[in-house]
Amino acid sequence: MEAAQSYSLQDLAAACGGEVVGDARTLIRGVGTLEQAVPGEITFLTNTLYRDLLSETRASAVILGAVDRHATLLPRIISDNPYACYARVAQRLFPFPRAVPGIHPSAVVDPTARISASASIGPQVVIGGGAIIGEGVVIGPGCVLGENVLLEDRVWLYPKVVIYAGCRIGPRCILHSGVVLGADGFGMARDQSGWVKIPQVGRVLIGADVEIGANTTVDRGAIEDTIIEEGVKLDNQIQIAHNCRIGAHTVIAGCTGISGSTRIGRNCRIGGGVGMVGHLDICDGVTVSGFSLITKSIAQPGVYTSSIPSQPHRTWMETLANLRALPQWVKKLRALEQDIQKLKEE
Amino acid sequence: MEAAQSYSLQDLAAACGGEVVGDARTLIRGVGTLEQAVPGEITFLTNTLYRDLLSETRASAVILGAVDRHATLLPRIISDNPYACYARVAQRLFPFPRAVPGIHPSAVVDPTARISASASIGPQVVIGGGAIIGEGVVIGPGCVLGENVLLEDRVWLYPKVVIYAGCRIGPRCILHSGVVLGADGFGMARDQSGWVKIPQVGRVLIGADVEIGANTTVDRGAIEDTIIEEGVKLDNQIQIAHNCRIGAHTVIAGCTGISGSTRIGRNCRIGGGVGMVGHLDICDGVTVSGFSLITKSIAQPGVYTSSIPSQPHRTWMETLANLRALPQWVKKLRALEQDIQKLKEE
Amino acid sequence: MEAAQSYSLQDLAAACGGEVVGDARTLIRGVGTLEQAVPGEITFLTNTLYRDLLSETRASAVILGAVDRHATLLPRIISDNPYACYARVAQRLFPFPRAVPGIHPSAVVDPTARISASASIGPQVVIGGGAIIGEGVVIGPGCVLGENVLLEDRVWLYPKVVIYAGCRIGPRCILHSGVVLGADGFGMARDQSGWVKIPQVGRVLIGADVEIGANTTVDRGAIEDTIIEEGVKLDNQIQIAHNCRIGAHTVIAGCTGISGSTRIGRNCRIGGGVGMVGHLDICDGVTVSGFSLITKSIAQPGVYTSSIPSQPHRTWMETLANLRALPQWVKKLRALEQDIQKLKEE
Repeated sequence: MEAAQSYSLQDLAAACGGEVVGDARTLIRGVGTLEQAVPGEITFLTNTLYRDLLSETRASAVILGAVDRHATLLPRIISDNPYACYARVAQRLFPFPRAVPGIHPSAVVDPTARISASASIGPQVVIGGGAIIGEGVVIGPGCVLGENVLLEDRVWLYPKVVIYAGCRIGPRCILHSGVVLGADGFGMARDQSGWVKIPQVGRVLIGADVEIGANTTVDRGAIEDTIIEEGVKLDNQIQIAHNCRIGAHTVIAGCTGISGSTRIGRNCRIGGGVGMVGHLDICDGVTVSGFSLITKSIAQPGVYTSSIPSQPHRTWMETLANLRALPQWVKKLRALEQDIQKLKEE
Repeated sequence: MEAAQSYSLQDLAAACGGEVVGDARTLIRGVGTLEQAVPGEITFLTNTLYRDLLSETRASAVILGAVDRHATLLPRIISDNPYACYARVAQRLFPFPRAVPGIHPSAVVDPTARISASASIGPQVVIGGGAIIGEGVVIGPGCVLGENVLLEDRVWLYPKVVIYAGCRIGPRCILHSGVVLGADGFGMARDQSGWVKIPQVGRVLIGADVEIGANTTVDRGAIEDTIIEEGVKLDNQIQIAHNCRIGAHTVIAGCTGISGSTRIGRNCRIGGGVGMVGHLDICDGVTVSGFSLITKSIAQPGVYTSSIPSQPHRTWMETLANLRALPQWVKKLRALEQDIQKLKEE
Repeated sequence: MEAAQSYSLQDLAAACGGEVVGDARTLIRGVGTLEQAVPGEITFLTNTLYRDLLSETRASAVILGAVDRHATLLPRIISDNPYACYARVAQRLFPFPRAVPGIHPSAVVDPTARISASASIGPQVVIGGGAIIGEGVVIGPGCVLGENVLLEDRVWLYPKVVIYAGCRIGPRCILHSGVVLGADGFGMARDQSGWVKIPQVGRVLIGADVEIGANTTVDRGAIEDTIIEEGVKLDNQIQIAHNCRIGAHTVIAGCTGISGSTRIGRNCRIGGGVGMVGHLDICDGVTVSGFSLITKSIAQPGVYTSSIPSQPHRTWMETLANLRALPQWVKKLRALEQDIQKLKEE
């Protein structure tokens, strides 16, 4: 993939604090995989499984760990953390596009909103009264911000993000299209007339450097706030219910749902398609395997799982039949134990 | 959380039909939890587990059940149903914001649409020909209504709801941002050329007082209509396929998917992350535990479950290995039975 | 459901290559189910289970397979593939609405975008620089297309689709509301400062005749492209992660999530609520049962399953307890084997 501008290998190494081996003036104009890179591109090796591909890559340079320092003759960047080095090199090559400061004439901005002069407000954006938009913020086309929303500096909203009234987004957050922050939590009380809506009067507070994937939803708190701490990364199509708190630098993969009032610690890694029931406390450093269900609080870091990998249908149906017959087998087993006990005593 | 206006405890008790004990003139200006409330706020106790927190709350008043009448000296509202009472008190304190009637100049409304004078049509709304918008309806910024959509009185659409042509929404429904009603159901026939699209010509009909959460989708019927009856509450990110019918006052938690032509009865409670296959009949009063799969019709009210709570990864992997080995264990068990039978006969 | 225009049975049979039996001049103005059709409507029988309903239908004509040729006296269309015949008949009766060519004055189109004269660009659409919009394309209200997006001829975008920069959509694709194509994949590297974002510089490439359901998301590739081949049909609320490739004519039901870099073959049928981990290769012709998890590559066509249908809660809890106790039962079983061995040897 070609960047808009070339950089020398020396420039790119500086971006990630890596060491150049070979011709530091090599010009790089894009990134590629080991297999698909073309001349002019830089690639990376982070998994020794792929070391054999090194000899055949057409890339002009490679990012490698110290252990692979001599694994190629290509110009290269040696790094303690080649994957993070690649991330920073790619950020240098593919910076966020420049957005032109100013408010597009089709945007509808309440006169009481305070918009930084350096912010870029796209076409058909709607911003409610009392909102505050920080320096360098970019709001893509069609976003809607309710009253008193706060976007701190350099927040980037892709098109069609909705942020309900009162929510606050920390600096440098990235919100992808279709994200809805601050919709009402699912709170109601039953009486004889049916379900009575409980007003959801808390907010959503998002810390610094959070990224939220497309069509993910985070509900506002019922009374207190729903909180996403700094550095959290949420994938697409995640649902975070009211009053949750997600600890700093925790990552959650797509299609996961977290029920109300559950608190997840820092540096957790939650897989895709996971469910968590409400009112749990998950400590720091927990990993949950994809497609697992968490129904109890977790006080010990570690990996937790309940997912079942599929099998050929017929095999699985047999397993399932046996699973359901387990109570019978257990009964038989107990009967056998008694039989044997008797036989022994004879 | 602070409201825009204060109310006396007497006023608030009237909102829910509760009885005041203590100073009925106590002024309340917000709500809080037992632990977090500050003076001027009202709180509630619905779970006796938290009764100990009563003595330490800083709230100015409490909503309690009759059983807890004497559990505090604070001014209080006594109610048969303290949670529903709290809901109505909070509704009094935090009413829906007033929307200014009229059509924003940036909205694009087909001249054949009929818009009540009391309706509020926000910026950049698009309304198709033949649509009918009732009294007191609020349509948030960026909503799109297809031709002949009907919104009955006091429907509230948050920003960026899409309603396809011909769908009808009952009075007082609340639809959150990102909801899509009436998209085509997933219907196609296979022939030698590939998949042939089956036009989806039914509609979505929504009864009164339904609330639908952010990014939830309800597909239009293939031939007949998809129907959501009155008082149903749908959480975020739910998918309701074509031709489904959801019975009155049923609630469905987030991330659940209901396949085509399934009918769910009245007063059901469907957990989050649930799946239902198509063409089922689920009777009234069924509860489905979160993360469970329903593959057969249900004719008896009760609770249905197939979810598996997670365990530490290693423990679970052992369980899983044993599960897969079940056919072998069952075979061994049968051999043992025969052995013992022989030993007995000896 | 009534169409805008009537057609003779002869016309409709021509649409699907079927044979008319009975009065070919019968006028048809709509479609209905066997049970609900009214005079003037055509219905169809594809499942012999419902053959008894034929005698009571009020429809004016029926589409049937050759085996049911004599099962009714109604005017009828006989087809080798009555369901596909119905699809084409319904397409004739309910064609896509005509969209008026031209660009709505409220749309914001970059002057460097090339828009075919026959395309219809709805209100409040935003189209970025360098985009190319083919013949007969319809872009519904509020869609946002980034820079250099390509829509080939007769693509139909329902309201509020977002397509990020550089993505390409093949001819005749249908994208429903809330679809987000080309958002950043979930890629980041960990270093001491937290998670470092890896720029996602690939694109999303969609082949011809693909339909994508409401609120489904397809992420752009990290380096190479994410590819959806021709004829693929994706239901609502699906998540396709970066670098995936979905083979031609594969169908995926709602709420399914496919993790990064997984490749699914042609003519697969993936159920709803399915999960697939990343970096898998699924061969052509694979069926995955709804609610199943795929954790390994699949090289043999067939049906794969790991889903567990629910049971009454108490029954399931017993099964679950036995499942968790399996290691103990296995231990006991082994002890019994030894006991019996001893008894035998005595």
